[in-house]
Amino acid sequence: MEKDISPLQGTELFKGLSPEQIRKVLNICHTVRFPANEIIMNEGEMGDSMYIILQGTVEVIKRLIMAAVDDDESADKSKVFTRLDATGLHPVFGEIALLQESKRTASVRTVTDCILYEIKKKDFLSLTESDFEFGYRILLNMAGIVSERLRKADEDTVKLTTVLSMILKES
Amino acid sequence: MEKDISPLQGTELFKGLSPEQIRKVLNICHTVRFPANEIIMNEGEMGDSMYIILQGTVEVIKRLIMAAVDDDESADKSKVFTRLDATGLHPVFGEIALLQESKRTASVRTVTDCILYEIKKKDFLSLTESDFEFGYRILLNMAGIVSERLRKADEDTVKLTTVLSMILKES
Repeated sequence: MEKDISPLQGTELFKGLSPEQIRKVLNICHTVRFPANEIIMNEGEMGDSMYIILQGTVEVIKRLIMAAVDDDESADKSKVFTRLDATGLHPVFGEIALLQESKRTASVRTVTDCILYEIKKKDFLSLTESDFEFGYRILLNMAGIVSERLRKADEDTVKLTTVLSMILKES
Repeated sequence: MEKDISPLQGTELFKGLSPEQIRKVLNICHTVRFPANEIIMNEGEMGDSMYIILQGTVEVIKRLIMAAVDDDESADKSKVFTRLDATGLHPVFGEIALLQESKRTASVRTVTDCILYEIKKKDFLSLTESDFEFGYRILLNMAGIVSERLRKADEDTVKLTTVLSMILKES
């Protein structure tokens, strides 16, 4: 089927890019399909691709307790779940793998049947190296998204240490 | 004085840039001097510049307890201190201000007399918009640095929630 640029235009990752630049991205997208309740990536594994959600809903799962002290690793109470679907502003996940050699920071599982675009790191870097304006604009968006997530993580840390300090004072 | 490119070449932010590109950055650097024990930026204030440490040592100070419940705000026990100096690999701070409209995520205070380069966001963006290859390469470095910090923040969150869960189990 002919690929449609509209799911990419809707995301924060592609804002400010021209339709021509978005079409170039489409050329390196692989369409992948997953049934419901399937793991797409596992936290801690090396990753080399990012995904754009075209259809369906996925769940991003982050471990909150270190494996070494988690006495019931399969329990859901020690994890945080965030849902992403094609209607969201960030229907993109795994993008940090394109920015550095790194392990996946969360697991992702399908909730419904899903259709995704997969973009491989090597294809992405070939494209950015062949069109620096495209590379600059998309990296500006990526850096903004990661900065926003960093601020959120910093806020979470302050909330957690605040709770911890209150508990320690009471005990 | 003639500006020297070597302090910029040594940083992760400028790796992969040509001497010509680094010289362009020098043209937008303002040399600023601070005596010892002076606040350069305050956590929570809006920022529009980043700094490169040429000489001296600074202390990055992050609040760990929310102000609303911190019964002794001036106390150092509820803060984390990290020292940066010109010999480090990241003698750069405040770079997130160049990537998005945002408040400073930490305070920075001089420990010794310091000489810094200050780069204003508007000068930085004029330069990246006029040279996309430069913009692409420096943003690739910035995105990598912020991704690395995000991973570190995620690890800190897991450690904190682990401690919190252990305390809650005991009580």
